[in-house]
Amino acid sequence: MGLPVVGMVGGGQLSRMTHQASIALGLSLRVLADATHDSAALVAQGVTIGDHTSLDDLRAFAAGCEVVTFDHEHVPGGLLEALEAEGLRIAPGSAALRHAQDKIVMRERLAAMGVPVPPFTPVATVRDVVGFAQHVGWPLVLKAATGGYDGKGVWVVHDEAEAADVVASGLRLVAEQLVPLRRELAAVVARSPYGQGAAWPVVETVQADGICVEVVAPAPGLPEELALQAQDIALRLADELDVVGVLAVELFEVPGTAGGSTLVVNELAMRPHNSAHWTIEGSRTSQFEQHLRAVLDYPLGATTLTAPWVVMANLLGGDDDDPDLDRRMHLLFGRDPAIKVHLYGKAVKPGRKIGHVTALGDDLDDVRRRAQVGAHYLRTGTWLHG
Amino acid sequence: MGLPVVGMVGGGQLSRMTHQASIALGLSLRVLADATHDSAALVAQGVTIGDHTSLDDLRAFAAGCEVVTFDHEHVPGGLLEALEAEGLRIAPGSAALRHAQDKIVMRERLAAMGVPVPPFTPVATVRDVVGFAQHVGWPLVLKAATGGYDGKGVWVVHDEAEAADVVASGLRLVAEQLVPLRRELAAVVARSPYGQGAAWPVVETVQADGICVEVVAPAPGLPEELALQAQDIALRLADELDVVGVLAVELFEVPGTAGGSTLVVNELAMRPHNSAHWTIEGSRTSQFEQHLRAVLDYPLGATTLTAPWVVMANLLGGDDDDPDLDRRMHLLFGRDPAIKVHLYGKAVKPGRKIGHVTALGDDLDDVRRRAQVGAHYLRTGTWLHG
Repeated sequence: MGLPVVGMVGGGQLSRMTHQASIALGLSLRVLADATHDSAALVAQGVTIGDHTSLDDLRAFAAGCEVVTFDHEHVPGGLLEALEAEGLRIAPGSAALRHAQDKIVMRERLAAMGVPVPPFTPVATVRDVVGFAQHVGWPLVLKAATGGYDGKGVWVVHDEAEAADVVASGLRLVAEQLVPLRRELAAVVARSPYGQGAAWPVVETVQADGICVEVVAPAPGLPEELALQAQDIALRLADELDVVGVLAVELFEVPGTAGGSTLVVNELAMRPHNSAHWTIEGSRTSQFEQHLRAVLDYPLGATTLTAPWVVMANLLGGDDDDPDLDRRMHLLFGRDPAIKVHLYGKAVKPGRKIGHVTALGDDLDDVRRRAQVGAHYLRTGTWLHG
Repeated sequence: MGLPVVGMVGGGQLSRMTHQASIALGLSLRVLADATHDSAALVAQGVTIGDHTSLDDLRAFAAGCEVVTFDHEHVPGGLLEALEAEGLRIAPGSAALRHAQDKIVMRERLAAMGVPVPPFTPVATVRDVVGFAQHVGWPLVLKAATGGYDGKGVWVVHDEAEAADVVASGLRLVAEQLVPLRRELAAVVARSPYGQGAAWPVVETVQADGICVEVVAPAPGLPEELALQAQDIALRLADELDVVGVLAVELFEVPGTAGGSTLVVNELAMRPHNSAHWTIEGSRTSQFEQHLRAVLDYPLGATTLTAPWVVMANLLGGDDDDPDLDRRMHLLFGRDPAIKVHLYGKAVKPGRKIGHVTALGDDLDDVRRRAQVGAHYLRTGTWLHG
């Protein structure tokens, strides 16, 4: 039927859910996975097992695709540039993706654009860190410039000795002020090569131990002015960085003047993002469909909500590495016939994201409670009280 | 993770969309397809190519599955009984499925249950048909007892000569009164082995040349009494026939007393059904997820609507066997960012179902128009006027 072939590098749950969305568009996502038991490799038809750090593997994979996109940021930028130089289409392109791969590049670019970011500086020595602390105080945050995710590669250091331990790792580091955040938000948008942008409502994200555990859409009580500002930042970044696909902008809401709040940008991700899994049921167009539409340069889909409140809770692996999820699904579905469960087919490890649940409805407290109860029950086999 | 393995016999679009739903439940549907280019075989990971009329092929396929279900009714009942005798789990079971495979068995059982059906009789000779015509008049309907679908195997005959042509086919036939129908409806429900039943709102189905072209949910202007009656019929049939999975009951709305309407049952299908494709976006639980929940004996999901009106229009193949669907998707998405498109990956043949579109909203006329415009444009490359 002449429909395009989309390849996604990475076999995680983002590829899995993108495959699910691709089916409706008449496609079958092709996936470059590390192993046959990867989340997406379990469900997609066109799976290649290969190494995303091998130019040969990437080249062979890309050759069969009209466009190649990503479920993670771990493909070295040099390889992406090489593929682009050979005329292969990569979305987002390597020049955009650098800003999601390297926090120093991102911080410097955003600061140059006048986008609000926490005070920061690249640091190479303990002396650098101590010098920065004289401006922002202790504790402060050290982050690995590359390779971090889900709280990994981020350290809150309280003094010179703690800083020295991190510097001793030899990683490229950036130091940031530990901002007095009120809460975390995310503005998720998509952009097509044509230049069309589309934004979902700004959401509140709740983290525990550096891992997102809950997303509430839209962010409760967020003044419209701040919501618009967050969307403007995300759409402007998508445009100026030439992003193609979904762009998630993680933000801190911090105290402003006269009791109000202001925003600073924390992180960028240029792919479907945990903070928008709620869109599968909660928006007319899911982030996974939207990402495909964007990389294919289709006009973007409506981002209208399907309910006043949508809450997603991540399902993290518990201590039991072989929970009887089948039995727990029975009992959860019996208790809440309207809750939606997404399992990723991944082996259970403590703290690992193995799925998520979504609840929708008119009453925020009720919706939030249902999502929390569902995720907690699937994780532990016990019901939250209260 | 100990999750069950579900196999589906048949590689058509119903398997394709069931696979899509299975991914969220942590499963990967296994599919027994006729060929690698079958609609579901293009997108699912666990595909077996085999013959659904071969006991060996069915047995080998079923051996790897906790439960086997169907995307069509064409597996011979004797083979299903043989698999059941070997202890393999089939859902729906052969005893239930007979009523969706054989119109004579179905008509006689429904009549015995007191469920309203058109006047009918099995016929073997032209004399049988003529004798039946003395009761119900000409024209009347002849139907092949088995094997028909999408208007195939159904003949409206106006006289003895036309009846003779059909009888000469040698098929097992049932004759029915040509009922003076006002419109067609469908009541779609699901039932689990535990005995739980769940019903979606009754819908109106619009046919052209025996093929469903449009489904409107809920059926506009249907008196609540009739809607409840239709749901009761479907839930009662699911229970008394011991159906497991989705049951679609196609109904005729016919003139009753005092200007009112009554219902008669036309056909049964025991699988996900075209009349409920709208549930993918239009209901909190899609028929595909519900079918899986039912065959796995999970508690059934909420059947709440996600919008006041949901309209699905089938995308039928046009005369052009290689339409530029990619270009048409671009232009349709540009015109209607909220329309949802489902393509089945099938080769285009005139009149063949190759996809569907769904529109949702508050205004019935607008929603209906959007669905019609979308399906017509994808089919023809021209916009409907008016």
